[in-house]
Amino acid sequence: MKGSFITLEGIEGAGKSTCMAEVLTVLKAAGRDVLETREPGGTRLGEELRQLLLGHKHTGMHEDTELLLMFASRAEHLQQRILPALNQGQWVLCDRFTDASYAYQGGGRGMDVERIRQLENWVQGDMRPDLTLLMDLPVELGLARAGKRSSPDRFESEALEFFERVRNAYLEIAGNEPQRVAVIDASRTLEEVQAQVREVTRAFLEGRA
Amino acid sequence: MKGSFITLEGIEGAGKSTCMAEVLTVLKAAGRDVLETREPGGTRLGEELRQLLLGHKHTGMHEDTELLLMFASRAEHLQQRILPALNQGQWVLCDRFTDASYAYQGGGRGMDVERIRQLENWVQGDMRPDLTLLMDLPVELGLARAGKRSSPDRFESEALEFFERVRNAYLEIAGNEPQRVAVIDASRTLEEVQAQVREVTRAFLEGRA
Ligand SMILES: Nc1ncnc2c1ncn2[C@@H]1O[C@H](COP(=O)(O)OP(=O)(O)OP(=O)(O)O)[C@@H](O)[C@H]1O
Ligand SMILES: Nc1ncnc2c1ncn2[C@@H]1O[C@H](COP(=O)(O)OP(=O)(O)OP(=O)(O)O)[C@@H](O)[C@H]1O
Ligand SMILES: [Mg+2]
Ligand SMILES: [Mg+2]
Repeated sequence: MKGSFITLEGIEGAGKSTCMAEVLTVLKAAGRDVLETREPGGTRLGEELRQLLLGHKHTGMHEDTELLLMFASRAEHLQQRILPALNQGQWVLCDRFTDASYAYQGGGRGMDVERIRQLENWVQGDMRPDLTLLMDLPVELGLARAGKRSSPDRFESEALEFFERVRNAYLEIAGNEPQRVAVIDASRTLEEVQAQVREVTRAFLEGRA
Repeated sequence: MKGSFITLEGIEGAGKSTCMAEVLTVLKAAGRDVLETREPGGTRLGEELRQLLLGHKHTGMHEDTELLLMFASRAEHLQQRILPALNQGQWVLCDRFTDASYAYQGGGRGMDVERIRQLENWVQGDMRPDLTLLMDLPVELGLARAGKRSSPDRFESEALEFFERVRNAYLEIAGNEPQRVAVIDASRTLEEVQAQVREVTRAFLEGRA
Protein backbone atom coordinates (compact mmCIF):
# COMPACT_ATOMS: atom_id res chain seq x y z
CA MET A 1 0.00 0.00 0.00
CA LYS A 2 1.20 3.51 -0.84
CA GLY A 3 2.39 5.68 2.03
CA SER A 4 1.01 9.08 2.98
CA PHE A 5 2.66 12.42 2.43
CA ILE A 6 2.57 14.81 5.41
CA THR A 7 3.96 18.35 5.39
CA LEU A 8 4.61 20.97 8.07
CA GLU A 9 4.15 24.63 7.26
CA GLY A 10 4.29 28.00 8.98
CA ILE A 11 6.43 31.12 9.31
CA GLU A 12 9.92 31.17 10.80
CA GLY A 13 10.01 30.07 14.42
CA ALA A 14 6.53 28.56 14.32
CA GLY A 15 7.84 25.24 15.61
CA LYS A 16 7.84 23.13 12.43
CA SER A 17 11.16 21.45 13.07
CA THR A 18 10.41 20.98 16.76
CA CYS A 19 7.02 19.37 16.06
CA MET A 20 8.26 17.12 13.28
CA ALA A 21 9.59 14.91 16.07
CA GLU A 22 6.07 14.60 17.53
CA VAL A 23 4.55 13.53 14.22
CA LEU A 24 7.37 11.05 13.80
CA THR A 25 6.83 9.57 17.25
CA VAL A 26 3.15 8.96 16.58
CA LEU A 27 3.77 7.44 13.15
CA LYS A 28 6.53 5.15 14.44
CA ALA A 29 4.39 4.04 17.38
CA ALA A 30 1.82 3.00 14.76
CA GLY A 31 4.47 0.97 12.95
CA ARG A 32 4.95 3.25 9.95
CA ASP A 33 8.28 3.45 8.13
CA VAL A 34 8.99 7.18 7.75
CA LEU A 35 11.24 9.27 5.51
CA GLU A 36 11.98 12.65 7.12
CA THR A 37 13.00 15.42 4.77
CA ARG A 38 12.82 19.19 4.12
CA GLU A 39 12.51 21.91 1.49
CA PRO A 40 14.20 23.62 -0.13
CA GLY A 41 16.71 20.78 -0.11
CA GLY A 42 16.09 17.10 0.45
CA THR A 43 18.61 16.03 -2.21
CA ARG A 44 22.28 16.78 -2.76
CA LEU A 45 21.44 19.09 -5.66
CA GLY A 46 18.52 20.56 -3.70
CA GLU A 47 20.79 21.43 -0.79
CA GLU A 48 23.11 23.29 -3.20
CA LEU A 49 20.09 25.18 -4.52
CA ARG A 50 19.05 25.89 -0.92
CA GLN A 51 22.42 27.62 -0.43
CA LEU A 52 21.82 29.75 -3.55
CA LEU A 53 18.29 30.63 -2.39
CA LEU A 54 18.83 31.34 1.30
CA GLY A 55 22.34 32.76 1.18
CA HIS A 56 23.20 36.43 0.90
CA LYS A 57 25.25 36.07 -2.28
CA HIS A 58 22.43 36.44 -4.81
CA THR A 59 20.18 38.91 -3.00
CA GLY A 60 19.18 40.72 -6.18
CA MET A 61 17.78 37.58 -7.82
CA HIS A 62 14.64 38.15 -9.91
CA GLU A 63 11.45 36.71 -8.39
CA ASP A 64 10.87 34.49 -11.44
CA THR A 65 14.34 33.00 -11.00
CA GLU A 66 13.72 32.39 -7.30
CA LEU A 67 10.48 30.55 -7.97
CA LEU A 68 11.99 28.43 -10.76
CA LEU A 69 14.87 27.41 -8.47
CA MET A 70 12.43 26.50 -5.72
CA PHE A 71 10.52 24.29 -8.12
CA ALA A 72 13.73 22.83 -9.60
CA SER A 73 14.72 21.75 -6.09
CA ARG A 74 11.19 20.42 -5.58
CA ALA A 75 11.16 18.47 -8.85
CA GLU A 76 14.41 16.72 -7.91
CA HIS A 77 13.16 16.01 -4.39
CA LEU A 78 9.82 14.68 -5.61
CA GLN A 79 11.15 12.51 -8.42
CA GLN A 80 14.24 11.12 -6.70
CA ARG A 81 13.08 10.72 -3.11
CA ILE A 82 9.46 11.47 -2.23
CA LEU A 83 7.65 9.54 -4.97
CA PRO A 84 9.93 6.47 -4.79
CA ALA A 85 9.48 6.35 -0.99
CA LEU A 86 5.68 6.66 -1.19
CA ASN A 87 5.54 4.01 -3.90
CA GLN A 88 7.48 1.63 -1.66
CA GLY A 89 4.97 2.14 1.14
CA GLN A 90 7.05 4.56 3.22
CA TRP A 91 5.41 7.60 4.77
CA VAL A 92 7.05 10.91 3.97
CA LEU A 93 7.26 13.77 6.44
CA CYS A 94 8.46 17.03 4.95
CA ASP A 95 9.42 20.33 6.63
CA ARG A 96 7.83 22.83 4.16
CA PHE A 97 6.56 22.08 0.64
CA THR A 98 4.60 23.91 -2.08
CA ASP A 99 2.30 25.80 0.31
CA ALA A 100 5.47 27.71 1.27
CA SER A 101 5.81 28.90 -2.35
CA TYR A 102 2.26 30.24 -2.28
CA ALA A 103 2.82 31.82 1.14
CA TYR A 104 6.29 33.36 0.59
CA GLN A 105 6.42 34.11 -3.13
CA GLY A 106 2.67 34.64 -3.58
CA GLY A 107 1.64 36.21 -0.25
CA GLY A 108 5.01 37.63 0.80
CA ARG A 109 6.39 38.90 -2.49
CA GLY A 110 3.05 39.43 -4.22
CA MET A 111 3.70 37.15 -7.17
CA ASP A 112 0.70 36.18 -9.29
CA VAL A 113 -0.78 33.07 -7.66
CA GLU A 114 -1.85 31.75 -11.07
CA ARG A 115 1.80 31.66 -12.20
CA ILE A 116 2.72 29.68 -9.07
CA ARG A 117 -0.11 27.27 -9.81
CA GLN A 118 1.27 26.74 -13.34
CA LEU A 119 4.64 25.63 -11.97
CA GLU A 120 2.98 23.49 -9.28
CA ASN A 121 1.04 21.63 -11.97
CA TRP A 122 4.10 21.43 -14.23
CA VAL A 123 6.23 19.82 -11.49
CA GLN A 124 3.66 17.82 -9.51
CA GLY A 125 0.84 16.99 -11.89
CA ASP A 126 -2.00 16.31 -9.43
CA MET A 127 0.29 15.16 -6.61
CA ARG A 128 -0.51 17.03 -3.34
CA PRO A 129 0.21 16.37 0.37
CA ASP A 130 -2.32 14.13 2.11
CA LEU A 131 -2.07 16.09 5.35
CA THR A 132 -0.54 19.49 6.14
CA LEU A 133 -0.01 20.78 9.67
CA LEU A 134 -0.04 24.56 9.60
CA MET A 135 1.74 25.90 12.68
CA ASP A 136 0.06 29.27 13.12
CA LEU A 137 1.12 32.05 15.47
CA PRO A 138 1.53 35.84 15.57
CA VAL A 139 4.46 36.98 13.46
CA GLU A 140 6.27 38.78 16.31
CA LEU A 141 6.20 35.64 18.43
CA GLY A 142 7.55 33.45 15.62
CA LEU A 143 10.32 35.87 14.76
CA ALA A 144 11.23 36.26 18.43
CA ARG A 145 11.52 32.47 18.77
CA ALA A 146 13.53 32.24 15.54
CA GLY A 147 15.80 35.10 16.61
CA LYS A 148 16.99 33.09 19.58
CA ARG A 149 18.95 30.96 17.18
CA SER A 150 21.52 31.73 14.44
CA SER A 151 21.98 34.94 12.41
CA PRO A 152 19.04 35.92 10.20
CA ASP A 153 19.01 34.52 6.66
CA ARG A 154 17.85 36.48 3.62
CA PHE A 155 14.15 35.95 4.19
CA GLU A 156 14.36 36.78 7.90
CA SER A 157 15.80 40.19 7.07
CA GLU A 158 12.56 41.19 5.34
CA ALA A 159 10.12 43.51 7.04
CA LEU A 160 7.51 42.39 9.55
CA GLU A 161 4.69 43.14 7.07
CA PHE A 162 6.18 40.58 4.73
CA PHE A 163 5.63 37.87 7.33
CA GLU A 164 2.12 39.11 8.03
CA ARG A 165 1.33 38.54 4.35
CA VAL A 166 2.96 35.10 4.52
CA ARG A 167 0.91 34.15 7.57
CA ASN A 168 -2.31 35.36 5.95
CA ALA A 169 -1.58 33.46 2.73
CA TYR A 170 -1.09 30.27 4.77
CA LEU A 171 -4.39 30.86 6.59
CA GLU A 172 -6.13 31.45 3.26
CA ILE A 173 -4.90 28.07 1.96
CA ALA A 174 -6.15 26.42 5.15
CA GLY A 175 -9.52 28.11 4.66
CA ASN A 176 -9.75 26.83 1.09
CA GLU A 177 -8.63 23.28 1.88
CA PRO A 178 -9.82 22.39 5.39
CA GLN A 179 -9.87 18.68 4.54
CA ARG A 180 -6.10 18.71 3.91
CA VAL A 181 -4.78 21.49 6.17
CA ALA A 182 -5.02 21.30 9.98
CA VAL A 183 -4.32 24.63 11.70
CA ILE A 184 -2.36 24.23 14.93
CA ASP A 185 -2.34 27.10 17.43
CA ALA A 186 1.42 27.35 17.77
CA SER A 187 1.32 30.30 20.16
CA ARG A 188 0.61 28.05 23.10
CA THR A 189 3.16 26.32 25.35
CA LEU A 190 5.36 23.71 23.76
CA GLU A 191 3.57 20.94 25.69
CA GLU A 192 0.14 22.10 24.49
CA VAL A 193 1.30 22.44 20.89
CA GLN A 194 2.94 19.02 20.95
CA ALA A 195 -0.26 17.47 22.30
CA GLN A 196 -2.29 19.07 19.50
CA VAL A 197 0.17 17.82 16.88
CA ARG A 198 -0.03 14.28 18.24
CA GLU A 199 -3.81 14.43 18.26
CA VAL A 200 -4.07 15.59 14.63
CA THR A 201 -1.61 12.94 13.51
CA ARG A 202 -3.49 10.18 15.36
CA ALA A 203 -6.82 11.32 13.87
CA PHE A 204 -5.27 11.22 10.39
CA LEU A 205 -3.89 7.71 11.00
CA GLU A 206 -7.31 6.52 12.13
CA GLY A 207 -8.94 8.03 9.05
CA ARG A 208 -6.51 6.07 6.88
CA ALA A 209 -7.00 2.75 8.66
CA MET B 1 14.59 52.59 -30.45
CA LYS B 2 14.67 49.07 -29.05
CA GLY B 3 17.58 46.88 -30.08
CA SER B 4 17.32 43.49 -31.77
CA PHE B 5 17.93 40.11 -30.19
CA ILE B 6 20.07 37.71 -32.24
CA THR B 7 20.90 34.14 -31.20
CA LEU B 8 23.31 31.48 -32.49
CA GLU B 9 22.31 27.85 -32.34
CA GLY B 10 23.65 24.46 -33.41
CA ILE B 11 25.21 21.31 -32.02
CA GLU B 12 28.64 21.17 -30.37
CA GLY B 13 31.47 22.24 -32.66
CA ALA B 14 29.12 23.83 -35.21
CA GLY B 15 31.03 27.10 -35.04
CA LYS B 16 28.68 29.22 -32.94
CA SER B 17 31.36 30.85 -30.81
CA THR B 18 33.67 31.31 -33.81
CA CYS B 19 30.95 32.98 -35.88
CA MET B 20 29.70 35.23 -33.10
CA ALA B 21 32.73 37.39 -33.90
CA GLU B 22 31.53 37.76 -37.49
CA VAL B 23 28.06 38.87 -36.48
CA LEU B 24 29.63 41.31 -34.04
CA THR B 25 31.92 42.77 -36.72
CA VAL B 26 29.01 43.46 -39.06
CA LEU B 27 26.86 45.00 -36.31
CA LYS B 28 29.68 47.20 -35.04
CA ALA B 29 30.53 48.35 -38.58
CA ALA B 30 26.88 49.44 -38.80
CA GLY B 31 27.29 51.44 -35.58
CA ARG B 32 25.29 49.20 -33.29
CA ASP B 33 26.10 48.93 -29.59
CA VAL B 34 26.18 45.17 -28.84
CA LEU B 35 25.92 43.06 -25.69
CA GLU B 36 27.57 39.65 -26.22
CA THR B 37 26.39 36.87 -23.93
CA ARG B 38 25.72 33.14 -23.69
CA GLU B 39 23.48 30.42 -22.22
CA PRO B 40 23.32 28.70 -19.90
CA GLY B 41 25.02 31.50 -18.00
CA GLY B 42 25.12 35.18 -18.78
CA THR B 43 24.76 36.24 -15.13
CA ARG B 44 26.74 35.41 -12.00
CA LEU B 45 23.95 33.14 -10.77
CA GLY B 46 23.51 31.71 -14.27
CA GLU B 47 27.17 30.78 -14.45
CA GLU B 48 26.82 28.90 -11.15
CA LEU B 49 23.81 27.07 -12.57
CA ARG B 50 25.84 26.35 -15.72
CA GLN B 51 28.37 24.55 -13.50
CA LEU B 52 25.58 22.46 -11.95
CA LEU B 53 24.13 21.64 -15.38
CA LEU B 54 27.26 20.89 -17.39
CA GLY B 55 29.43 19.39 -14.66
CA HIS B 56 29.72 15.70 -13.86
CA LYS B 57 28.65 16.08 -10.22
CA HIS B 58 24.88 15.78 -10.72
CA THR B 59 24.73 13.34 -13.64
CA GLY B 60 21.64 11.57 -12.34
CA MET B 61 19.55 14.76 -12.29
CA HIS B 62 15.90 14.27 -13.31
CA GLU B 63 15.01 15.77 -16.71
CA ASP B 64 12.36 18.01 -15.13
CA THR B 65 14.99 19.45 -12.78
CA GLU B 66 17.39 20.02 -15.66
CA LEU B 67 14.80 21.94 -17.66
CA LEU B 68 13.72 24.05 -14.67
CA LEU B 69 17.35 24.98 -13.96
CA MET B 70 17.87 25.93 -17.61
CA PHE B 71 14.84 28.18 -17.46
CA ALA B 72 15.86 29.60 -14.05
CA SER B 73 19.18 30.62 -15.58
CA ARG B 74 17.29 32.02 -18.58
CA ALA B 75 14.83 34.01 -16.44
CA GLU B 76 17.70 35.68 -14.59
CA HIS B 77 19.55 36.38 -17.83
CA LEU B 78 16.48 37.78 -19.55
CA GLN B 79 15.28 39.97 -16.67
CA GLN B 80 18.62 41.26 -15.45
CA ARG B 81 20.60 41.66 -18.67
CA ILE B 82 18.87 40.98 -21.99
CA LEU B 83 15.65 42.98 -21.55
CA PRO B 84 17.34 45.99 -19.90
CA ALA B 85 19.92 46.07 -22.73
CA LEU B 86 17.28 45.85 -25.47
CA ASN B 87 15.19 48.53 -23.79
CA GLN B 88 18.21 50.85 -23.76
CA GLY B 89 18.66 50.36 -27.50
CA GLN B 90 21.55 47.88 -27.31
CA TRP B 91 21.58 44.87 -29.60
CA VAL B 92 21.99 41.52 -27.87
CA LEU B 93 23.96 38.65 -29.37
CA CYS B 94 23.54 35.37 -27.50
CA ASP B 95 25.38 32.02 -27.91
CA ARG B 96 22.42 29.59 -27.52
CA PHE B 97 18.95 30.38 -26.18
CA THR B 98 15.57 28.65 -25.89
CA ASP B 99 15.84 26.78 -29.21
CA ALA B 100 18.58 24.79 -27.46
CA SER B 101 16.04 23.62 -24.85
CA TYR B 102 13.75 22.34 -27.59
CA ALA B 103 16.68 20.73 -29.41
CA TYR B 104 18.50 19.12 -26.44
CA GLN B 105 15.74 18.40 -23.93
CA GLY B 106 12.97 17.95 -26.49
CA GLY B 107 14.78 16.37 -29.45
CA GLY B 108 17.74 14.87 -27.60
CA ARG B 109 16.10 13.60 -24.40
CA GLY B 110 12.62 13.16 -25.82
CA MET B 111 10.84 15.44 -23.37
CA ASP B 112 7.31 16.50 -24.25
CA VAL B 113 7.64 19.63 -26.40
CA GLU B 114 4.39 20.99 -24.97
CA ARG B 115 5.92 21.03 -21.47
CA ILE B 116 8.93 22.97 -22.80
CA ARG B 117 6.56 25.45 -24.44
CA GLN B 118 4.80 25.96 -21.08
CA LEU B 119 8.06 27.01 -19.42
CA GLU B 120 9.06 29.15 -22.41
CA ASN B 121 5.79 31.06 -22.11
CA TRP B 122 6.08 31.23 -18.32
CA VAL B 123 9.57 32.78 -18.48
CA GLN B 124 9.45 34.79 -21.69
CA GLY B 125 5.83 35.73 -22.27
CA ASP B 126 5.83 36.43 -26.01
CA MET B 127 9.48 37.51 -26.11
CA ARG B 128 11.41 35.63 -28.86
CA PRO B 129 14.70 36.24 -30.73
CA ASP B 130 14.39 38.52 -33.76
CA LEU B 131 16.97 36.51 -35.72
CA THR B 132 18.51 33.09 -35.12
CA LEU B 133 21.50 31.76 -37.04
CA LEU B 134 21.34 27.98 -37.03
CA MET B 135 24.81 26.58 -37.72
CA ASP B 136 23.97 23.24 -39.30
CA LEU B 137 26.39 20.42 -40.09
CA PRO B 138 26.67 16.62 -39.87
CA VAL B 139 26.96 15.44 -36.29
CA GLU B 140 30.26 13.60 -36.82
CA LEU B 141 31.88 16.72 -38.23
CA GLY B 142 30.68 18.90 -35.36
CA LEU B 143 31.81 16.42 -32.71
CA ALA B 144 35.17 15.99 -34.45
CA ARG B 145 35.68 19.76 -34.38
CA ALA B 146 34.57 19.99 -30.76
CA GLY B 147 36.80 17.07 -29.78
CA LYS B 148 39.87 19.02 -30.80
CA ARG B 149 39.37 21.14 -27.70
CA SER B 150 38.95 20.36 -23.99
CA SER B 151 37.67 17.17 -22.33
CA PRO B 152 34.05 16.25 -23.11
CA ASP B 153 31.39 17.67 -20.81
CA ARG B 154 28.30 15.77 -19.70
CA PHE B 155 26.29 16.35 -22.86
CA GLU B 156 29.21 15.52 -25.16
CA SER B 157 29.49 12.08 -23.56
CA GLU B 158 26.05 11.15 -24.89
CA ALA B 159 25.70 8.88 -27.87
CA LEU B 160 25.88 10.02 -31.49
CA GLU B 161 22.17 9.33 -32.00
CA PHE B 162 21.43 11.86 -29.31
CA PHE B 163 23.08 14.56 -31.39
CA GLU B 164 21.27 13.40 -34.54
CA ARG B 165 18.01 14.02 -32.71
CA VAL B 166 19.26 17.41 -31.55
CA ARG B 167 20.24 18.39 -35.09
CA ASN B 168 16.88 17.26 -36.48
CA ALA B 169 14.97 19.17 -33.81
CA TYR B 170 16.89 22.33 -34.74
CA LEU B 171 16.08 21.80 -38.43
CA GLU B 172 12.43 21.28 -37.57
CA ILE B 173 12.31 24.63 -35.76
CA ALA B 174 13.94 26.28 -38.78
CA GLY B 175 11.33 24.66 -41.03
CA ASN B 176 8.52 25.97 -38.84
CA GLU B 177 9.91 29.49 -38.45
CA PRO B 178 11.78 30.35 -41.66
CA GLN B 179 11.18 34.09 -41.12
CA ARG B 180 13.18 33.98 -37.85
CA VAL B 181 15.73 31.17 -38.36
CA ALA B 182 18.43 31.35 -41.04
CA VAL B 183 20.11 27.98 -41.65
CA ILE B 184 23.86 28.33 -42.27
CA ASP B 185 25.70 25.43 -43.93
CA ALA B 186 28.42 25.09 -41.29
CA SER B 187 30.10 22.12 -42.98
CA ARG B 188 31.92 24.36 -45.43
CA THR B 189 35.32 26.04 -44.95
CA LEU B 190 35.59 28.63 -42.23
CA GLU B 191 35.92 31.42 -44.83
CA GLU B 192 32.76 30.32 -46.64
CA VAL B 193 30.80 29.99 -43.41
CA GLN B 194 31.97 33.36 -42.16
CA ALA B 195 30.93 34.98 -45.46
CA GLN B 196 27.45 33.44 -45.18
CA VAL B 197 27.10 34.66 -41.60
CA ARG B 198 28.07 38.20 -42.58
CA GLU B 199 25.61 38.12 -45.47
CA VAL B 200 22.68 36.98 -43.30
CA THR B 201 23.51 39.60 -40.68
CA ARG B 202 23.71 42.39 -43.29
CA ALA B 203 20.39 41.34 -44.83
CA PHE B 204 18.77 41.43 -41.38
CA LEU B 205 20.21 44.89 -40.70
CA GLU B 206 18.83 46.15 -44.01
CA GLY B 207 15.42 44.69 -43.24
CA ARG B 208 15.41 46.61 -39.96
CA ALA B 209 16.52 49.91 -41.45
N1 LIG C 1 5.31 26.24 21.53
C1 LIG C 1 6.52 26.73 21.76
N2 LIG C 1 6.73 27.53 22.82
C2 LIG C 1 7.94 28.09 23.02
N3 LIG C 1 9.02 27.88 22.24
C3 LIG C 1 8.87 27.09 21.17
C4 LIG C 1 7.62 26.48 20.87
N4 LIG C 1 7.78 25.74 19.73
C5 LIG C 1 9.06 25.92 19.34
N5 LIG C 1 9.72 26.70 20.21
C6 LIG C 1 11.13 27.15 20.12
O1 LIG C 1 11.15 28.15 19.08
C7 LIG C 1 12.31 28.04 18.31
C8 LIG C 1 11.91 27.83 16.83
O2 LIG C 1 11.31 26.54 16.67
P1 LIG C 1 11.57 25.69 15.35
O3 LIG C 1 13.01 25.72 15.00
O4 LIG C 1 10.93 24.37 15.54
O5 LIG C 1 10.76 26.58 14.33
P2 LIG C 1 10.65 26.38 12.75
O6 LIG C 1 9.22 26.58 12.40
O7 LIG C 1 11.27 25.09 12.34
O8 LIG C 1 11.50 27.62 12.23
P3 LIG C 1 12.30 27.78 10.84
O9 LIG C 1 11.28 28.09 9.78
O10 LIG C 1 13.19 28.97 11.08
O11 LIG C 1 13.06 26.51 10.58
C9 LIG C 1 13.09 26.88 18.87
O12 LIG C 1 14.07 27.41 19.73
C10 LIG C 1 12.07 26.08 19.63
O13 LIG C 1 12.63 25.37 20.73
N1 LIG D 1 33.83 26.09 -40.85
C1 LIG D 1 34.79 25.54 -40.10
N2 LIG D 1 35.70 24.74 -40.62
C2 LIG D 1 36.65 24.17 -39.85
N3 LIG D 1 36.77 24.36 -38.54
C3 LIG D 1 35.87 25.16 -37.94
C4 LIG D 1 34.84 25.80 -38.67
N4 LIG D 1 34.09 26.52 -37.79
C5 LIG D 1 34.64 26.36 -36.58
N5 LIG D 1 35.71 25.55 -36.66
C6 LIG D 1 36.55 25.09 -35.54
O1 LIG D 1 35.78 24.09 -34.88
C7 LIG D 1 35.93 24.19 -33.46
C8 LIG D 1 34.58 24.40 -32.82
O2 LIG D 1 34.08 25.69 -33.15
P1 LIG D 1 33.29 26.56 -32.08
O3 LIG D 1 33.96 26.51 -30.76
O4 LIG D 1 33.02 27.89 -32.68
O5 LIG D 1 31.94 25.70 -32.03
P2 LIG D 1 30.69 25.90 -31.07
O6 LIG D 1 29.50 25.73 -31.95
O7 LIG D 1 30.82 27.19 -30.33
O8 LIG D 1 30.83 24.66 -30.09
P3 LIG D 1 30.31 24.48 -28.57
O9 LIG D 1 28.84 24.21 -28.67
O10 LIG D 1 31.04 23.29 -28.09
O11 LIG D 1 30.65 25.75 -27.84
C9 LIG D 1 36.91 25.33 -33.22
O12 LIG D 1 38.19 24.79 -33.04
C10 LIG D 1 36.83 26.15 -34.50
O13 LIG D 1 38.04 26.82 -34.78
MG1 LIG E 1 12.86 24.65 11.03
MG1 LIG F 1 30.88 27.63 -28.24
